[in-house]
Parts: sequence; structure tokens; C-alpha cells
Amino acid sequence: METVETLHMNKGAGETSYATNSFIQRKILSLTKEATEKAIMEILCSTRSPLINMGIADLGCSSGPNVFKVMSEIVEAINAASNMLARPAPEELMLYMNDLFTNDFNNVFASLPSFHKKINQQNGNDSKNNGYFGSKCFVSAVPGTFYGRLFPTKSIHFVHSSSSIHWLSRVPGVLEEKGGRRLNKGNLCISKNSPNCVLQAYSQQFQNDLSCFLKSRSQEMVYGGRMVLSFLGRQSMEYTSSNCYYQWELLARALKTMVSEGLVKEEKVDSFNAPYYACCYEELKMEIKKEGSFSVDSHEAYEVDWDDGKDLQSDHDLSETMSKGERFSRAMRAAVESILEYHFGNHLMDELFQRYAILVEDHLSKNRATFINLIISLVKQY
Amino acid sequence: METVETLHMNKGAGETSYATNSFIQRKILSLTKEATEKAIMEILCSTRSPLINMGIADLGCSSGPNVFKVMSEIVEAINAASNMLARPAPEELMLYMNDLFTNDFNNVFASLPSFHKKINQQNGNDSKNNGYFGSKCFVSAVPGTFYGRLFPTKSIHFVHSSSSIHWLSRVPGVLEEKGGRRLNKGNLCISKNSPNCVLQAYSQQFQNDLSCFLKSRSQEMVYGGRMVLSFLGRQSMEYTSSNCYYQWELLARALKTMVSEGLVKEEKVDSFNAPYYACCYEELKMEIKKEGSFSVDSHEAYEVDWDDGKDLQSDHDLSETMSKGERFSRAMRAAVESILEYHFGNHLMDELFQRYAILVEDHLSKNRATFINLIISLVKQY
Repeated sequence: METVETLHMNKGAGETSYATNSFIQRKILSLTKEATEKAIMEILCSTRSPLINMGIADLGCSSGPNVFKVMSEIVEAINAASNMLARPAPEELMLYMNDLFTNDFNNVFASLPSFHKKINQQNGNDSKNNGYFGSKCFVSAVPGTFYGRLFPTKSIHFVHSSSSIHWLSRVPGVLEEKGGRRLNKGNLCISKNSPNCVLQAYSQQFQNDLSCFLKSRSQEMVYGGRMVLSFLGRQSMEYTSSNCYYQWELLARALKTMVSEGLVKEEKVDSFNAPYYACCYEELKMEIKKEGSFSVDSHEAYEVDWDDGKDLQSDHDLSETMSKGERFSRAMRAAVESILEYHFGNHLMDELFQRYAILVEDHLSKNRATFINLIISLVKQY
Repeated sequence: METVETLHMNKGAGETSYATNSFIQRKILSLTKEATEKAIMEILCSTRSPLINMGIADLGCSSGPNVFKVMSEIVEAINAASNMLARPAPEELMLYMNDLFTNDFNNVFASLPSFHKKINQQNGNDSKNNGYFGSKCFVSAVPGTFYGRLFPTKSIHFVHSSSSIHWLSRVPGVLEEKGGRRLNKGNLCISKNSPNCVLQAYSQQFQNDLSCFLKSRSQEMVYGGRMVLSFLGRQSMEYTSSNCYYQWELLARALKTMVSEGLVKEEKVDSFNAPYYACCYEELKMEIKKEGSFSVDSHEAYEVDWDDGKDLQSDHDLSETMSKGERFSRAMRAAVESILEYHFGNHLMDELFQRYAILVEDHLSKNRATFINLIISLVKQY
């Protein structure tokens, strides 16, 4: 299980950090705004008397400029919905930021004063508007895997998670066993030429993980609580439809050029498998039905270009001088370097992502490359 | 208010880090064990039916090896008390680790897996013993000042704080004003030759801070909740009794040698004041009475040698080769470097603490130097 404990977005705020290169995730974040606002409204509508307090969790919050964007929007949505309903807003909000314990929480907390300031400014001068002051928003960090329990029983009203649950809790067991490591040789993840047993192992791991995820949230959430999940997926039951693993295929290709030059051992490439799975809506629905405590309120699918969100990159000047290939390579590096580094060694990373940038640039010059981002909104039933 | 936002124990786990040099604080931690166990027992005794869940906060938890020591002991104490009372232990524990948002929480979270492992081991094989598994202990980090609200209303049963509330929320206002900066010239904190207005400014700041502290905890804690506070103080009403600021006087002396050699400007020394106050029990009692929602269950005072706890230093080999002076200098540096660095500049720190080590060594060769550590146990009244 090498990858589970090593997976984290790149720390800090430097050139290769997730903070600097999470523009695609930022673009994707903006897609959940409507579903979030609707869910918040429904939560506040569904109780007879106004809520006194409200537990809100962002699962897989990561670090960088996106981290308090969601929370700010949620607090705004609560204020807006309360005003619309002419009800007092919940007196106290408990805002839980979750990610694996290896996440850069110091970076998260560094943004906390400006988050409080923003909330105070939004609301401070207009107290009749049910405004939140910093003192009514209790922010805490909850480190740990969301494939297990994170919060006390019945303490959460709303769960948000973006760009997170496509990460599995581990590489499928069979691919980690000594004899099984090369079952998916030449590939870094699911690929068009992955054998059937690999596809099934990934699918099984996803089902197990989602089952743990739903069971845990079911215990933690109150009746009528809502959950908006946004993640990279695919549009049909076909495992490799819509090129949903193509980012990994190009990365494998970059590694193979390094194998051919003797920089990386072939065996190293063959034995790496990423804990990543792009599910389709039907698979999700099946697990939700099996677990039984959530119903689906709505679901949507969006096509997101590999180069989307570039205007949202925090360092605009840097962004302007980069090719599309470089930009995507940096975004991918910020997200997956931790697990690659652990397996292949830190010294190969610069070279690998330079080669990757060239392959991506070439691909984008001839093709439109997109992700499928699924958003699903769930309601806790009992 | 330069110091408030810059105060944090030295980060990481290196040679000058708090993690490596917090042995005095570790020694002091061991002093609260008895009061903690008693408080836990009283909390569990005081309810008619067994508690379902329990909120526990460690205020000013810092980072390094001490950080989960307290929490482990608290969980052990809950198990032991529940067994003694032949009651089921609370089903869920919410463990809140608090410190300023500049604290090294990444370091705190790095110890989380071993904390969970320890708790599971303690209890895992003996489930009839009301044991806690990781899944029943919800650990979160709550960044922010404890001189304000940190937790939702009536959510906390037990508060622990060690080596923290002797840090003020800010340098007393009058000493931060342009004309007031040199009122305490030549001193870094309260000193035998501080003028009366300085003593009073510090005392007033302490009262204000303690009042905010008590008011906040009063709102956050349940009826019958308990609080064990341990901190450096003094034994009589006399401001400078028992040399309770002598660590600062020696540091001022080290700086003055650097002034005389032109390494530091005298004005810089004159304008620095540390946000530190060693209170006495009577001052504390007065504020507790004024605030009104807590009663004092017990209070104790301990003398702690400057060189106490050296066997507890995490790097024993390093510790063996050091003189007492060096050891104390490192301990002091780990705690106060952040605020000194901000005022005097990073480039002077090595030199300053080398000189400090020599002065401390000389002092300890001729005198016994001690801190007075006060421990007070409070009960939430209504």
C-alpha cells in the first residue's frame, strides 16, 4: 500500500506546488456552486424550526487558494438562503476541513485570517442580514481518510467534496501482490490495453471504497443532510470510454522514452499502478442503492478541457509564458508527484514532467482533450 | 501587535526546533497528570447517566513529542475512571488540538497515526474494558487564539492547557505606542527595575486576557465541565518575586553585550517587550471570581529547575554532550525565537543564543535557578 500514505498534493506555494497549479480543480470547483446552493437551501427548508448550529465538511480540501473558496461560498449560500426564507441563519457553523494527514494544513491555516476577514466584511456591516462573524464560524482541520469515520455521530448537515473521490484508498490489492504487480505492465492506471482482471480489480476497489465512504457519512450525517460530490469520471459503462485515463497514458509514454534511454528500469514502470478510478454514474448509483441510506437528488456531467481554468491560475505572469502542454504538465505534477516520487525517485521528476509537457503539447495541438466531471447531489434518508 | 501573530514555538524537528527542545515543558506536563485524572473522574461521576460523547480540548498544544502525550493520558484516564465506576466509557471522544494558526500543525498530524495505533493497542485486545479504538476518537486541529471563542457553545467537557497561558495575547498596549516603547528600556519583559507603570500595564493586559479566556471557555463548556491549567507563575503578589523573569533578564544581558559590540542597536533592545506574564494565584482567583462562572477545585505550586526534564529530551545523545547552559539556551530559543527573530532579525539568533548559553551556564554554576509552575483546577458552575 505504498501509495495511500504517500498521496498528497504538492506542498507549499512554490513553482511545482498544488497551490500554484490547481487551476483545473478551481475551474471544476466553480461547477458545484449551483448544486451546493440548492442543497443548502433544501437543508434549511427541511427543518420545522430554524437550525441552531450546522456542521459542514469539505472532504479532500487540499491546500492553496481553492481551500477556503468552497467554505466562503457555503457560508454565503447559508446567509442568502436564510434571508430568502426570512429565517434566522444557524447561530453557529462548524466548518471542518478534511484531507489526509500528509496534507499541507499549515498552508491551509495560513489563509484562515483572510477567510475570517472576508466573512466579517461580507456580513459585518449588515447585521440584520443574519451575517456570520468569525466568532460564529468554528473552523477546524480533521486529518484522515474519508473512506472511514471522521466525525462524531449525526454531527454533519452538509458534505462537499470536489476532485477527491476519484482517488482510491489504495491500489487494488491484486496489483500490489508480488505476482500481480506486472499484471498491468506498461500502464500506470487503467488503459485501453489493460487486461480484464485489472479493470475488475480497479472497479472492485472503487466499490469497496465507495461503500466505506457512504457507510461512514451515513453515520455522521443528520437526517435530511445533503452531500455534493464532484469528481472525474466517465460517461458510459465502458471502462475506457471518452479517453478518461488518457492523462495517465501520456505519462506512461513519457516514462517509456526514459526506459528506452536507460534512465528508468522497465520493471519500475510495469510495477506502478495509480490509485485512481474514473467511475460512471451507473456504478455510483448501484453502490448508493446497495448502501441504502442516501437517495440521489440530482446528477450532472460536464466536459472540462485539459486547459480549462488557466485564467484562474494564481500566478498569471507565469501562466502567460507557458505552453498548454507545460501548464497541464505542471497541474498533473502538483497532483500526482508525491506518489510517483515515492516509486521512481525524486531525481527523475523534473525530466519526467518536461517530457510529459512535450507529449501533452503535441497531443493538444492535434486533439481536443477533455475530462468528464460528474457531480452528484445526495440526501440522507433516515 | 507585532508579537501576537509571530509567536509560535520553533517548527519542524531540527536542532533548534521546539520538538527537539521541549523537555522542560514535558517535565511540567507530567505535573498535571494527577489533576487531570481527578478532573476526568469528577466529570464522569457528576452525570446521572453515562456520557454519550465527550469534548476534550488541549489549548496551546504546540508540536513535537509532547503533543499527543496529554491526549493519550486523558484517553487512558477516561478508560480507567469508567472502569472504576463500572460505567460504559463515553461512546465518542472529540479531541481538539488548539494552538495559534502559525503553529506547526503538519508536525502534529505526522504523529497522528502513531497516536491512533497506541490507543488501539492500549485497548484493542480488551474490549470489555471500554477501550477506545481510533474510530471512536475524533481528532481535529482548531487554530486560533484561546483568548477568544474556539468551540461551539456547550461542546466541551474538559480543557487542558500546559505552558501556554503565561503567553499574553499581545504586548501591553502602552508599550506598543510610539512614546511608550522605551518605557521599559533595557528590559525584555518585567524586570526588577521596570517602572511601576510597566508592571501595571502587564498586569492589566493579563487581567484582560484572562477575562476573555474565562468568558470564552464559559460559553464553550458544559455545566460541570472541568479545566486544568498549568503555567509559569510566581508565588507572591510581589511582581518580581522568586526571580520569575530571570530567564528574560539574562537574555537582555546577552543582547546588551551585543549592543556594546555594535551588533545590535540599543534602541532595538529598548523597544522590545515580550508578551509574557507570570501571574500569582491571588490575581488568578480575583479574575475567576469576577468572571463568575468557574469555581476553583484545587491549586498547587511546583518549583521546576531550569535544568529539569533533561532526561526527557528527545535526542539523548545530543543532550549528553551539552552543558546545562546550552541546554537551557536551546529550550528558551525553541520557545521565543519567533518573536525575537521578527524584532531583531534572523541573522542575530545563533550569536544571541550562544552568548545566552554562556550567561546561563555561569548563572547555574553559582545558583539554583527555578521556575514556579502553578496548576489550577476549575469547575464550570452553571
